[in-house]
Amino acid sequence: MTHRDLHVIIPAGGAGTRLWPLSRRRRPKFLLDLTGAGRTLLQATVDRLEARAASITIVTGAAHRDAVLAQLPEFDGHPDRFVVTEPSGRDSMPAIGLATYLVRRRYGADAVVGSFAADHLIARPDLLVTAVDAAAAAARQGFVTTIGITPTEPSSAYGYIHPGAALDLHRVRRVESFVEKPDAATAARYVDQGYLWNAGMFLMGAGVLAGHLARLHPELDEGLEAIADAWGGRDQDEVLDSTWPHLRHIAIDHAVAEPVAAEGGVAVVPADPGLGWTDLGDFRALDELDTRVGDALRVEAPGTVVHVGTDQRVVLVGVEDLVVVTTPDAILVTRDAAAQKVKEAVDALAQEGRTDLL
Amino acid sequence: MTHRDLHVIIPAGGAGTRLWPLSRRRRPKFLLDLTGAGRTLLQATVDRLEARAASITIVTGAAHRDAVLAQLPEFDGHPDRFVVTEPSGRDSMPAIGLATYLVRRRYGADAVVGSFAADHLIARPDLLVTAVDAAAAAARQGFVTTIGITPTEPSSAYGYIHPGAALDLHRVRRVESFVEKPDAATAARYVDQGYLWNAGMFLMGAGVLAGHLARLHPELDEGLEAIADAWGGRDQDEVLDSTWPHLRHIAIDHAVAEPVAAEGGVAVVPADPGLGWTDLGDFRALDELDTRVGDALRVEAPGTVVHVGTDQRVVLVGVEDLVVVTTPDAILVTRDAAAQKVKEAVDALAQEGRTDLL
Repeated sequence: MTHRDLHVIIPAGGAGTRLWPLSRRRRPKFLLDLTGAGRTLLQATVDRLEARAASITIVTGAAHRDAVLAQLPEFDGHPDRFVVTEPSGRDSMPAIGLATYLVRRRYGADAVVGSFAADHLIARPDLLVTAVDAAAAAARQGFVTTIGITPTEPSSAYGYIHPGAALDLHRVRRVESFVEKPDAATAARYVDQGYLWNAGMFLMGAGVLAGHLARLHPELDEGLEAIADAWGGRDQDEVLDSTWPHLRHIAIDHAVAEPVAAEGGVAVVPADPGLGWTDLGDFRALDELDTRVGDALRVEAPGTVVHVGTDQRVVLVGVEDLVVVTTPDAILVTRDAAAQKVKEAVDALAQEGRTDLL
Repeated sequence: MTHRDLHVIIPAGGAGTRLWPLSRRRRPKFLLDLTGAGRTLLQATVDRLEARAASITIVTGAAHRDAVLAQLPEFDGHPDRFVVTEPSGRDSMPAIGLATYLVRRRYGADAVVGSFAADHLIARPDLLVTAVDAAAAAARQGFVTTIGITPTEPSSAYGYIHPGAALDLHRVRRVESFVEKPDAATAARYVDQGYLWNAGMFLMGAGVLAGHLARLHPELDEGLEAIADAWGGRDQDEVLDSTWPHLRHIAIDHAVAEPVAAEGGVAVVPADPGLGWTDLGDFRALDELDTRVGDALRVEAPGTVVHVGTDQRVVLVGVEDLVVVTTPDAILVTRDAAAQKVKEAVDALAQEGRTDLL
């Protein structure tokens, strides 16, 4: 199949600090070529969905609009490629919602939209496309459809999908529920029971999503309708700027996926186990790639992870389970268990006035 | 007293790897300004002994001769300042012995020589000078005389001096024995018993040392005599190069101080506790100085020591007792207990052909 009937939505938002000092506020993860393959994560996301994309809408912050267009110059002036600027980050539901309402206006309520994170990595894009085809078929049947990742380990870093009965559609099962990031023991049980990782990929009819929003979050539906109504007109920016700040700060998982799953309206396509998905959530995940960044010289340094972004030779002697990252202007030394605290350090740099390092 | 009657000997040898990557083979510790005071450790050693120095002889390797003269240009052509090049490092006894035999030839057997490491630091040079004066007086009485450091903690990084009865000389006691670096429990006992640290400072008559060598190590005495005989003559280099490689590889402690102490011939002057001596043996010692090197941003990082030699901001999050050192071309991450293994890493760099980093 080579049909292009999927309207791809790529929310390219919050930088986070999980990959600081590699990622920065002004150079977030999705703008980086973390694999050394010559394409940034955002570019690779576009690349792997091109074959099915009737349209592509990237939703990003004003600060990143120019960088996005510089990386994807074909989006500038293309009739079916869009960069939508959100005035502020309000989590994924407003971003995906706005893009969906714009798609619905342009291409009709039957258009199938699919949202895909801008900063994940997939080793086998061909296997993603076959999963997308199956998910799009379920979406055309009215399901909010997610693509589930077969766990490779009992990770407590991801939310899980509890799959239910098979539906009368190729590879598609109903979703019993979505569950939050579990502790290690619960994660092991989930994996034993065939749960899947939630990678945040959702496909659904544009009208179906709008219907769920109108029912579950009417004020969000109204706000998005108002913005979409004004889009492309004289008062677009005025309506956007006056409406957006009042939209609820909420993820699509909580806003739609979980409540609709409880009603039996969500389906899942388990991706082929060979998909090779990773969200590159930390430096250890990055280390597992065969990247071209510099390595360290290790003497009795088990479990250490390095990301050497300078010409400096990094030497680790007699240290365990460390994470060491070097960039031309900053060096981080931490360990996995402390990675969440890197944000505190970045906040402290802000206090010091080192905005250049944020 | 302002008399200049001490013939200072400064062995400036082995670089070691305890301060790698700050110190390098071609830029050993004694050539570095580790305090940021504007003088290198070697320069500071000369500075603090100038007031008592009838002559100063620096014994160094061929690789460092030019750097030594660049740091001490006044040594070039000065009638009483010498840089003696040893063909290879053979520990401290041959180096101090050669300098002593040259002093004896120039200034007579009654000349008092005093050897002082090139890479130690002393906070109060005035207190060193008063100790040197007392030690020189004991040396003139025929004692091999050391200056003992009052311990500030029960360190197991130093050898200790076991002081005995007071001699009939100001501040001078006989030495019962020298003891090797102890374990922590033994060190605590030594400190309780009033033992002193052995900082490798020895003063003695040039003829006295030659007499001990002739008696205890006749082959070393003969070799040094042969070299001193030829010194300044046509066959100096020939005799040096043919004789030196056969001299015994031995420290002055083992060669002379220990056996002569057993005979009752060694004295010690306990330095004033306020002397502020340190051998800057590792980065933790360096960290205790109020240096001008960059600091790190720490979030829950107790006991960590950093030496930041670049403009990079070093951020430590959730790590304990680490030692982190940055230089423009190398970064070391280790911990105190593993510091001895840094040599293995430097050897591995040599194997890699990274001689630029050694």
